[in-house]
Amino acid sequence: MYGKINEEILSQLKSIAGANNVITSPEEVCVYANDEYVCRQEGCQPEAVVRPGKVEEVSAILKLASEHRLPVTPRGGGTGLAGGCVPIYGGVVLSLQRMNRFLELDRKNQVAVVEAGLTLGEFIQQVEKQGFYFPPHPGDEGAMFGGMIATNAGGSRAVKYGVIRNYIKGLEVVLADGQVIHPGGKLIKNSSGYNLVNLFIGSEGTLGVITRAIVQVMSRPTFLRTMVIPFNGIEQAIDNVPLIFDRGILPMAVEFAGLDVLRLTEEHLHLNWPTHSGDMHLMIIVDAGSEDDLGKMTDEIADIVLENGALDVFVADTTAKQDEVLKIRSEIYEAIKKETIDILDTSVPRSEIAGHVRKIHEVAQKYGLWLPVFGHAGDGNVHTHLMKAKYEDGRMVPINVDEIKDKLEMARQELFQDAARRGGVISGEHGIGLYKKNYFPLTMEAGQIELMKKIKQAADPLGILNPGKIF
Amino acid sequence: MYGKINEEILSQLKSIAGANNVITSPEEVCVYANDEYVCRQEGCQPEAVVRPGKVEEVSAILKLASEHRLPVTPRGGGTGLAGGCVPIYGGVVLSLQRMNRFLELDRKNQVAVVEAGLTLGEFIQQVEKQGFYFPPHPGDEGAMFGGMIATNAGGSRAVKYGVIRNYIKGLEVVLADGQVIHPGGKLIKNSSGYNLVNLFIGSEGTLGVITRAIVQVMSRPTFLRTMVIPFNGIEQAIDNVPLIFDRGILPMAVEFAGLDVLRLTEEHLHLNWPTHSGDMHLMIIVDAGSEDDLGKMTDEIADIVLENGALDVFVADTTAKQDEVLKIRSEIYEAIKKETIDILDTSVPRSEIAGHVRKIHEVAQKYGLWLPVFGHAGDGNVHTHLMKAKYEDGRMVPINVDEIKDKLEMARQELFQDAARRGGVISGEHGIGLYKKNYFPLTMEAGQIELMKKIKQAADPLGILNPGKIF
Repeated sequence: MYGKINEEILSQLKSIAGANNVITSPEEVCVYANDEYVCRQEGCQPEAVVRPGKVEEVSAILKLASEHRLPVTPRGGGTGLAGGCVPIYGGVVLSLQRMNRFLELDRKNQVAVVEAGLTLGEFIQQVEKQGFYFPPHPGDEGAMFGGMIATNAGGSRAVKYGVIRNYIKGLEVVLADGQVIHPGGKLIKNSSGYNLVNLFIGSEGTLGVITRAIVQVMSRPTFLRTMVIPFNGIEQAIDNVPLIFDRGILPMAVEFAGLDVLRLTEEHLHLNWPTHSGDMHLMIIVDAGSEDDLGKMTDEIADIVLENGALDVFVADTTAKQDEVLKIRSEIYEAIKKETIDILDTSVPRSEIAGHVRKIHEVAQKYGLWLPVFGHAGDGNVHTHLMKAKYEDGRMVPINVDEIKDKLEMARQELFQDAARRGGVISGEHGIGLYKKNYFPLTMEAGQIELMKKIKQAADPLGILNPGKIF
Repeated sequence: MYGKINEEILSQLKSIAGANNVITSPEEVCVYANDEYVCRQEGCQPEAVVRPGKVEEVSAILKLASEHRLPVTPRGGGTGLAGGCVPIYGGVVLSLQRMNRFLELDRKNQVAVVEAGLTLGEFIQQVEKQGFYFPPHPGDEGAMFGGMIATNAGGSRAVKYGVIRNYIKGLEVVLADGQVIHPGGKLIKNSSGYNLVNLFIGSEGTLGVITRAIVQVMSRPTFLRTMVIPFNGIEQAIDNVPLIFDRGILPMAVEFAGLDVLRLTEEHLHLNWPTHSGDMHLMIIVDAGSEDDLGKMTDEIADIVLENGALDVFVADTTAKQDEVLKIRSEIYEAIKKETIDILDTSVPRSEIAGHVRKIHEVAQKYGLWLPVFGHAGDGNVHTHLMKAKYEDGRMVPINVDEIKDKLEMARQELFQDAARRGGVISGEHGIGLYKKNYFPLTMEAGQIELMKKIKQAADPLGILNPGKIF
């Protein structure tokens, strides 16, 4: 079905991007064969990696790929968790890493213009240097803009500040046939035809290659405070979340995590979490324009939770203390990664988190598995971890994965189905990519998948763009 | 090309929606033939108007329409300004007016679930009764949800609170073949396949019929204040807007209007605008959680504008004064409508408003036209009015339209082109519909239109859904 890269095509690729930027040696291309997913699919290898330096080169590569029907797998920072950038049909990996310029900070319109290969870390630095602020923080700062847009990355601040989608105002996209389009712009309002910007956001490189973005930035919120609140049991913890919103308080982040994973992460990092009470903790970050407002907010939250089962309330009011708490929260995955088989990122309505987490515990018990869970209580995004280990006496004890493989698979499917029953979806922020596509029909209406496939067929009739992903 | 409605089809329609809900008498159907656009296209008449009561009926109507290739024009409140609901090929007008239920207010997830035929006015009442708040206000409260979603309606609060798109979390949509899908949900995060919700938002009924929506609501901002600030000249006025944002102040609305139209509206309504100084006024609405914060904000804004050319600052701090100011601002269009040929709604980057308005004045002078302009200085959405009148001594003096028709047409095209040159689009909130579709290619890349058409073809291969709109 797909064409193969021969010597002639290779020399054309070299003349487009420069010989240095076309890689074919097996040792070098294998670096471009995977993402951060823990259980990699073996044997995925591109025939060539091409690193274009500008949009005209991307366009020429796609024209060539169309001509020879070569699979093209766009790649950003490779920090994804769903295999979205894994080249399963060989062909070309199109790495955006050289297109990494911060092109403009337009103060009057409060937008930045960036190339797709710019990393989140570099972007944050540039923006903050100029006195602005970028609220979403999907996690790994090595992520590149193209990839964050292609997966509609989220993070813990979504409850107040939204996800990447909410900040992307315009794009430059190279279509399958090499045509370059510029949907959106530095605009706040736009009712002119179909919203192509939002169609490309989250399309995981299957409809076009994102090469540039117009990104909204904000004035910096001046004051921050982080609270840690221990509870006995997930229900107690989660039931407090709507009570906070009901009072008109909108925290920047409301995270939950079990004491099991918090302890493991403390040990991993040699840092201290403020309390070991209870077994389920909420971490709440609030931001406001003044210390006064912040004080009022944390007092009000403390009153609410202490009336509703909180065992204690810890407020990290210095930057150092806040950083320690945040560091632990954000490194949980790193701490348990070595025994992790899969990290799920189901998204359910906020009201359904407690029920879904209860189901996770039931499933864990039923199959005798350890399924540690943490996530974004404010936005309904739940990270369940399928582990090849037990948790005993504060330690992870490895289990032979072959013994529990079938149970893990059944657990995974039951959790996806539970999320779907609760009006949820299989992915809240990682994307479907390669590793979740078999489960996609479990949680998505057939009619919607059918329509998505029609759109894919219309935009990329040869199927060269990131083939084998999503569906 | 399209089929015609015969007796048999008519009786099938009646058996689907009930005989009372299928209208064919010319006097009655003509009520469903137009929207609020001032210069209507004559001779548009549906063969039948059908008013289904539930989604199953909408589905059956579309199946029947597919079978006989009947044009189907979905219709909400008929308050549009671009002819989006005008049936130009006969066929069926599918009025959603009977599907007008407020189905649920889900407090825990802070969303409402509504049918497409619910009006904005009714929605606001219901939501506020239950202690919540719906920030966007696209204007006419007779607008129905389906129409507001189909046009991605905007309004003056977009600068802080966004447009309708930002509040729609999920939809129920009937596709051209009658299939019903439910993209999105009560979710904050979703990275599961293409974002169909955002594809339907703003698609003006050409990709599917929206029958239900999940709408985000918010806690009520407690305190509001309205400021009126007169300037000499549009540049002076507009140049102050980025200065306000630069200080980290995010007003709820920043509107601008010329004294000419403000005076006409005062007279029209027998109300008083707070000042007649200068010739261009900013109206700024700020909201905050406390009177203190509000006071700080209005003081800071006053300091900024008085340093930068403001002639005076009026603060409406009572509800009565605020209502008077708002009433005048929102009724400008009504006051000048009778002499209006067209109301444009170009959207440009905020930084380009002053330049675009200068161009409007140049064009007005060049052709000897009166082109009053007002709009949303905070979000770049500029409403230029093509008038069949002169403005003399505070009054509108009608001109024979035939004498200036060609000039008006040239002015219109020059303004669209100017908006496009500034990175703008032809419609910020009204949609392309029927009356702007000939100008759409002036401001939109050919490659984007081509891709939109491919999507249309993929979703509606028979072209029965709202034919003749957008492209």
